[in-house]
Amino acid sequence: MKKRNIKLTLEYDGTNYCGWQKQPDAPSIEETLENAISKVTKEDVHVIGSGRTDSSVHAIGQVANFHTNSKIPSERFVKALNTMLPDDIAVRKSEEVGVDFHSRYCATQKEYKYIIYNSDVRSPLKKNYSYHVDYKLNRESMKEALECFIGRYDFKGFMSTGSSVKDTVRTITQVEFIEDKDMIEITIKGNGFLYNMVRIIVGTLVDIGRGRIEASAIMDIIESKDRNQAGHTAPPQGLYLSEVFYK
Amino acid sequence: MKKRNIKLTLEYDGTNYCGWQKQPDAPSIEETLENAISKVTKEDVHVIGSGRTDSSVHAIGQVANFHTNSKIPSERFVKALNTMLPDDIAVRKSEEVGVDFHSRYCATQKEYKYIIYNSDVRSPLKKNYSYHVDYKLNRESMKEALECFIGRYDFKGFMSTGSSVKDTVRTITQVEFIEDKDMIEITIKGNGFLYNMVRIIVGTLVDIGRGRIEASAIMDIIESKDRNQAGHTAPPQGLYLSEVFYK
Repeated sequence: MKKRNIKLTLEYDGTNYCGWQKQPDAPSIEETLENAISKVTKEDVHVIGSGRTDSSVHAIGQVANFHTNSKIPSERFVKALNTMLPDDIAVRKSEEVGVDFHSRYCATQKEYKYIIYNSDVRSPLKKNYSYHVDYKLNRESMKEALECFIGRYDFKGFMSTGSSVKDTVRTITQVEFIEDKDMIEITIKGNGFLYNMVRIIVGTLVDIGRGRIEASAIMDIIESKDRNQAGHTAPPQGLYLSEVFYK
Repeated sequence: MKKRNIKLTLEYDGTNYCGWQKQPDAPSIEETLENAISKVTKEDVHVIGSGRTDSSVHAIGQVANFHTNSKIPSERFVKALNTMLPDDIAVRKSEEVGVDFHSRYCATQKEYKYIIYNSDVRSPLKKNYSYHVDYKLNRESMKEALECFIGRYDFKGFMSTGSSVKDTVRTITQVEFIEDKDMIEITIKGNGFLYNMVRIIVGTLVDIGRGRIEASAIMDIIESKDRNQAGHTAPPQGLYLSEVFYK
């Protein structure tokens, strides 16, 4: 067992990656990060992420940790790794933590942001960084519906089929809906998220905003535990893992 | 002479282009736009831009016009062209204008924005869209210096060498300096700009912010008309052509 445990806070542009998790024939954040750490520490390194992100999903505050015997001072990993990493991945912070710290198991809450660009014309500068919705949205209904998600519920209906997770009860602790002209930023914080849960919540909100689903139906949809009752899955490029919380 | 004159307002992400102007072996905004218009109108088309933008420079409100005999209603060009254009170029607005309208000659003023990302760590999500300055900036000095640029001056010292322009007198009518944590947005509006003028002004402001040039020296630098007295040329990816004004 290596002696030191280093916690990294990461930002990345997910556009050109297959996602966090290693895959045989596509570049992943995980593998790119491991390669950079190995170059710096001259060790074989295994990185533990707080959780996966899908292809095209971004992170402002992803957390990962790795064990090492390297004597490099912990804060030095920021500069050392950023020299090795490609432009679209950066270490924002590095710190030494207790040897038992585990990015995934120790996480108590996570926060995601989702950006909707609501305009009748597409925006080249926002294309990889938002969900372009070109029909008029009733933002008041969306806000009202978003508030309903706060609480401890079985979110089975808000999980993509194919996931093997058994316990689908999660607690959403905080939500926020910020508008700035044609931009909408939705923030959702909770103790854990099912596969595609944020994207299905946002897709449902968009369906509410365009009148396909009633805002008042949200509690029934949650209670139905039926994926078919919820709305569409919003696309990945509008999603940002913004923060991971620890005790 | 073709009968109709269509004015387009364009947004583009300049990252993957050699700039506005056509070049033999590299993709330009101008050529990509002409190809799209030709496909839609089934005519050979020549596009007139309000001015060039360099490689990696973005536009939120570039203006261009073209003459056509096509009977497509003017506002329809938005959807028709956006279907043909790649993701990183979009027509935001199209309108029919008088046959004498010329995007370059009729422009009375232009507005540019420049984004500085001022943080000790680089940001993958901002890399193509801002100038990363990793040393501490004295923002008060920068603001003070920026205000000095308002007025009618010979800006010869703020033009990249090699430009063949003879009359180097320009009027800057408005400036703005907005800070939001680690982001600085500088807006400069004027009746015309020399080659690289905005980028040299911003580079000079950054040199002032880090203490290499005194804010109080700005008037002397302008009066010297000497490129070597001004600061460095800020990189292209922080620059946005935000609006072109007409009578």
